[in-house]
Amino acid sequence: MSQDAQVSSSSAPTLEDVARVAGVSRATVSRVVNGVRNVDPAIQEAVRAAVTATGYRPNRAARSLVTRRAETIALVVSGAGGDSPEEQDAFAARAFGDPFFGRVVSGVIGYLRPHGMHPVLMFAETAAARAEVVAYLRQGSADGALVVSTHAEDPLPPMLAEAGLAAVLFARPARPVPLSYVDLDHRDGGRLAAERLLGLGRRRPATIAGPLDVPAGQERLAGFRDAMARGGQPYVPVAEGGFTARSGAEAMARLLADHPDLDAVFAANDLMAEGACRVLLEQGRRVPEDVAVVGFDDSPAATACRPPLTTVRQPVEDMAAEMARLLRQRIETPGTPVTSAVFDPELVVRESA
Amino acid sequence: MSQDAQVSSSSAPTLEDVARVAGVSRATVSRVVNGVRNVDPAIQEAVRAAVTATGYRPNRAARSLVTRRAETIALVVSGAGGDSPEEQDAFAARAFGDPFFGRVVSGVIGYLRPHGMHPVLMFAETAAARAEVVAYLRQGSADGALVVSTHAEDPLPPMLAEAGLAAVLFARPARPVPLSYVDLDHRDGGRLAAERLLGLGRRRPATIAGPLDVPAGQERLAGFRDAMARGGQPYVPVAEGGFTARSGAEAMARLLADHPDLDAVFAANDLMAEGACRVLLEQGRRVPEDVAVVGFDDSPAATACRPPLTTVRQPVEDMAAEMARLLRQRIETPGTPVTSAVFDPELVVRESA
Repeated sequence: MSQDAQVSSSSAPTLEDVARVAGVSRATVSRVVNGVRNVDPAIQEAVRAAVTATGYRPNRAARSLVTRRAETIALVVSGAGGDSPEEQDAFAARAFGDPFFGRVVSGVIGYLRPHGMHPVLMFAETAAARAEVVAYLRQGSADGALVVSTHAEDPLPPMLAEAGLAAVLFARPARPVPLSYVDLDHRDGGRLAAERLLGLGRRRPATIAGPLDVPAGQERLAGFRDAMARGGQPYVPVAEGGFTARSGAEAMARLLADHPDLDAVFAANDLMAEGACRVLLEQGRRVPEDVAVVGFDDSPAATACRPPLTTVRQPVEDMAAEMARLLRQRIETPGTPVTSAVFDPELVVRESA
Repeated sequence: MSQDAQVSSSSAPTLEDVARVAGVSRATVSRVVNGVRNVDPAIQEAVRAAVTATGYRPNRAARSLVTRRAETIALVVSGAGGDSPEEQDAFAARAFGDPFFGRVVSGVIGYLRPHGMHPVLMFAETAAARAEVVAYLRQGSADGALVVSTHAEDPLPPMLAEAGLAAVLFARPARPVPLSYVDLDHRDGGRLAAERLLGLGRRRPATIAGPLDVPAGQERLAGFRDAMARGGQPYVPVAEGGFTARSGAEAMARLLADHPDLDAVFAANDLMAEGACRVLLEQGRRVPEDVAVVGFDDSPAATACRPPLTTVRQPVEDMAAEMARLLRQRIETPGTPVTSAVFDPELVVRESA
């Protein structure tokens, strides 16, 4: 069929055309196209083939008028950066430079795809962009939002809650907000790292913490310190990093300068652990022989690191899928109470500790 | 106002409510809401404030019924991976692990946002996912697609072309396809790298090429070799990498084993250059004193590298914005002929060469 047939409305294929090609009734085509569940898979397949063959466009807009739903959700990466184009570019590059985000996207798409849904990607790094996300949801262009904040003081979650919009957060917000979230037991993750290093007989541990205004940063540190204290190591030097490889390298250099005899490091994410390993090797320390290193996340950075990182696994894909499931539930049943889903971390042993 | 007012249709605020609050006519509200251009900015602002205050939802679905457009586009990351969930996760992690992708997203959002459009993010890494992208576009859920392929033999572009769908590609496809694309003059980029190294007096150059089944990989290598030959260096050892830091490290180790006296390396992207620097430092070579290194892209990896990379800048954000502009043009004027926009690279000098 010609390309024109798809853009001109006069010759647009109809539901009847699909029904004729598929050899089924108009009502059956309608049910398949509208995603009604109890239709025989073979018939669904025949209808879909006929849709493709005819070039028929099931009228999503018409269906949306009936359901008053956009049948799509927004995946919002939000932060609190500046308004200049350079800062916006930097925001995007930073957000996507962290392999964490790819895992979130993967989990979200993995959950939504079987439901025929696809996320609309939005940034909310400025006041104008945040207002636009709220407007986009209010006007029903998306039915709800999955929010991944890159800053502790992200103003978007309270704005969404106040507007009564459907939203689910990745990670507990720094201040209480009446929205559902998925999170990890970060404190328990810190404990796993400490117990690994204690078990290896390390007695002069140090740690590179995440940003301490972020709950994940605080909790990983607290869990590590508590377990170290229980293991007879009440004093653990701390250097704060920013969850980037570069900040991990800088923190490692500071720790080595102040505590040259350290024999173990827990970095609160894999990127910082990677930066730390680089500095250790540059300064002639062997990992793990001289200094054992444990990371956090089990992101692709953990296997790319030299040596490959022993790390605390955060099941980001599963958490992101659960975030999408909670949002869908909230959209379909608007009265659903706010909830949280907290996942357990797991130690993955490789070469660095 | 209560949350219920936004979900119950009986009390849904109307265009009249917005007009009354904004103190303008119903027609003016309609023009602002539908994005008609020549409305005084102050009035636009008043209408937007009234939309927010009333909780009015301009009926995008109703508008779509008139324009027969979804008023959204798909941003498709496509490849040719396997169908298992593990491979799908790996695909997403790999695609987003490269800072290149964040720059594409940033450029696309930067262009679309002022037009009130937001991209729908889709993966097309399996046959089923590709079929779904085609179906999604055919049924009008998005008006067109921006396609970023991670594999040379990506089957998606020819599928889109055959279906007569609006699509623009990032980078020229390995085989001719009647779709518009944006690209870089990669050959000229290779020349810039060679001339920099020749200008520094290096006489024993080697190169880490990108995958040679990808036009960008071939062209960067060809441009580098041609310029080296013109500069009196007809023999340049080549090791092929896969555009990842790890593959760059492995290629560097091979080159050093075979050519221990090399004094310059051109890596066809920054991630591979970063891996190469790591191996050089591990093997006791100083960068740039013993071995000068030039990367390609000017991605965040270039500044994160130690030492910071001299590199060939690819203006990815501008290219992505142009890709979105070309798609919008094609959607608004369906007869627009297929075109290409080829950008010029630029040498950025830092410390590594």
